[in-house]
Amino acid sequence: MAIKKQPKIKPCPVTVSLEPENQETPVHFVEDWITPEEFFYKRNHFPYPPPDDVPTTLKIEGLVKRPLVLDYKQLLSLPAKTLIATLECAGNKRILFHPRVYGVQWQKGAISQGIWGGVPLYTLLRMAGIKRSARDIVFTGADRGPDQSVYERSLPVEKAMHPDTIVAYQMNGGPIPHAHGFPFRLIVPGWYAMASVKWLCKITAIDSAFEGSFQTTDYMYYPHADTDDGKKPVTTIKVNSFIQQPQDYDTLKKGLNLIKGFAWTGKGTISKVEVSTDNGVSWKPASLFKSQHPYAWTFWKYEWQAEQKGEFIILARAKDSTGRVQPMVPEWNRKGYGYNAITSIRVQVK
Amino acid sequence: MAIKKQPKIKPCPVTVSLEPENQETPVHFVEDWITPEEFFYKRNHFPYPPPDDVPTTLKIEGLVKRPLVLDYKQLLSLPAKTLIATLECAGNKRILFHPRVYGVQWQKGAISQGIWGGVPLYTLLRMAGIKRSARDIVFTGADRGPDQSVYERSLPVEKAMHPDTIVAYQMNGGPIPHAHGFPFRLIVPGWYAMASVKWLCKITAIDSAFEGSFQTTDYMYYPHADTDDGKKPVTTIKVNSFIQQPQDYDTLKKGLNLIKGFAWTGKGTISKVEVSTDNGVSWKPASLFKSQHPYAWTFWKYEWQAEQKGEFIILARAKDSTGRVQPMVPEWNRKGYGYNAITSIRVQVK
Repeated sequence: MAIKKQPKIKPCPVTVSLEPENQETPVHFVEDWITPEEFFYKRNHFPYPPPDDVPTTLKIEGLVKRPLVLDYKQLLSLPAKTLIATLECAGNKRILFHPRVYGVQWQKGAISQGIWGGVPLYTLLRMAGIKRSARDIVFTGADRGPDQSVYERSLPVEKAMHPDTIVAYQMNGGPIPHAHGFPFRLIVPGWYAMASVKWLCKITAIDSAFEGSFQTTDYMYYPHADTDDGKKPVTTIKVNSFIQQPQDYDTLKKGLNLIKGFAWTGKGTISKVEVSTDNGVSWKPASLFKSQHPYAWTFWKYEWQAEQKGEFIILARAKDSTGRVQPMVPEWNRKGYGYNAITSIRVQVK
Repeated sequence: MAIKKQPKIKPCPVTVSLEPENQETPVHFVEDWITPEEFFYKRNHFPYPPPDDVPTTLKIEGLVKRPLVLDYKQLLSLPAKTLIATLECAGNKRILFHPRVYGVQWQKGAISQGIWGGVPLYTLLRMAGIKRSARDIVFTGADRGPDQSVYERSLPVEKAMHPDTIVAYQMNGGPIPHAHGFPFRLIVPGWYAMASVKWLCKITAIDSAFEGSFQTTDYMYYPHADTDDGKKPVTTIKVNSFIQQPQDYDTLKKGLNLIKGFAWTGKGTISKVEVSTDNGVSWKPASLFKSQHPYAWTFWKYEWQAEQKGEFIILARAKDSTGRVQPMVPEWNRKGYGYNAITSIRVQVK
C-alpha cells in the first residue's frame, strides 16, 4: 500500500451559520492582497437564490427618461473599470462589543478584498437619463427571504454617481461566483458591504428617501439599548486594523518577534499604524505596505525586540488621511455595527 | 455563458494554527456519529513527519522476552477489534477558562469521533512476552520537533492491557490518513487524546514511571498559577456536554424551539443530560440518543416551549453512570486542561 501524500495545510473559512450561509475569511492566515474565492467571506440574509431565478438582465427604471433592460453582453460592451476594494460587513467584530449584542456573531473575519470589474453606475444612470427629481437610487437583489421579502438598499444620488461606484460583473478576474452575486453585483467602495448588493437585478431612481427595512431598521446605529433616539444610518467604513500575528494568547520567545496585520478605512487612505507593546503607554510607528489602489487595505508590520519575559498587551491603532483614528473604546450600538476600537491581544514572552 | 451551479453549503474546520496544523471540528454543524476525515479535528505538537520518515513497522521492545518488529501485513493478520471512540484534546474549551490561560486557544471543537480498527495492544504485549517487572508502557511517535524532540507518552500497564486499548490501522473504514497517524495510531478510549499517539513506531516496556516532558511537564493539571503544588496527570476524559443549537446569541421565535447537542464521558456512559432555560433555577431532562458503542458520545435534545419574549440563559449539564456531573465552576488549572463546566449560552426570544 502506498503511503498517502503529505496533506497540504490550508486555513479554512470560519463557519458562522449554514442557513443562510455566513462564513468568515480566515484573516489570520490570508496574506494576499486579493482574497481568493475559497476564502472570501460570505454574508447572506436569505438562502441563495436558485441560479435559474436570478435574472440575467439588469433593469434601470423609476425616475429615468429611458428605462433600460441590459443583458450581460450589453454590460460587457460598455466602458469598464476595475478596482480593488475591501468589502467589510458592518457587523465585523460584533462579538467584541461589551455588553454583547445579538445578530450574526462575527469575529474578525467578515472582511475580504477582491478585484472588481464592471461599469460605473453613473454610465448606466446617464444612459437611462436620470431625472433631476431623483433623490435615492434603490438596488434590488434577486434573493428572497420568508414571505418573499427582498434585499433592497439605496444610495443617495451623489454616492450613486461617484465614478467608483460600479455595477460589477467580474470578481478576481472571472465572472462573479454565484455565492457572491452572479451575474451583477453593486460595488460601493468605502461603504460597509451591506451597500454592495448581490444578484443585482433592478435599479430604481426615486424622489424620496428609501424606507426599506434594510435601510431604516437594520444597518442603523442605535446608540441606546432601549430607545431609538439618535439613530443614524451605517454608511462609510470606519478606520480599523487587525493584528494577524501574533495571535491572542500566543507564547513568544525572547528576541525579535514580528507583529503584523492590516489596516483599512472607507475615507481617504491609511496614513499611519502605531503599535504598542506596553498596553498603550508608548507607541511606535509600524512600516506600511500600501497598495496603489486607494480602496485596498494596507499591510503593516513592526519588529518587536522582546527583551523581558512576562505578559504583554500588544495594541495596534490605525489612522487615516482624513484624521480619523481608532478609538480606545468602541461606540457601542444596539445592533453591533462598526466596531473599530484599537485592536489588542495578549501574549507571553518566555 | 452558463450560470454557475448552486454551491454546496458546507461547514469548515476552524483553523487555530497552521505551523503546526491545529484545526477544530465545526461541532455546531456536524450531526453524524462518525466525524468524516474532512472535519476531523487535528492537533499537532510538531510539523507533520514526512511520510517517508514514518516507519512502516512497529517495534515492541524494552522489558519483553521477545522484542518484535511487525509490519503492516503482520498487524493486519492478527485478530482485530473495531470501536467507535470520542477523541477529545485535553485542551478542548481552553479559551473558556477565567482567568484565561496560554496554550493553543481551542474553542469547543477539539473533539471528534471515529471508527477505529486495529489490534488490542495486549495481544502485542503478550506476543512479545511482557515481563512482570514492566510498570509503564511508552509509546513513541515518528513526528519530530525542534532539536529532534520526540512525542512520547506512556500508559500504566493496567491501562495498556485493557482490551479496548488498541493499535489502530484503520480510521472510519480505511487506512488512517497521514494527518491522523498513518500507518499506526494508539487509541486509548476514555482518555484525553494526548494518549492516542499518532505515527506510532515504537512501544517500550519500562520498569519505572516514564518521565518524558509530555508526561510530566505538559498534560498535567497545575491547580495554582505560581507553584506546581498539587499537580496531577491528565488521564480520563471528564463528563462534558456541548450545545449545538441554538448558538450563543441566537435570536429565536416564540413557540417551540429545539435545543440539542451531545454529551460525553471517559468513565462509564452518559446517564442523563438536563437542560435549564432559566439560568439554572429549574432543570428538565433531555431525551438521549445513545450509541451501542460505550465510548461514543450521546446526542441529546430538548424541545423548549418559549412562551415569553426576552433574554434567556440556557444551560446543559451531563451526568455519567459513575455519578460524575458537570460542575458549575470549572477546575481552573494553569495549562488549561479538562474544562467541563456546565455549558451555557444566551439567546433572545422575539
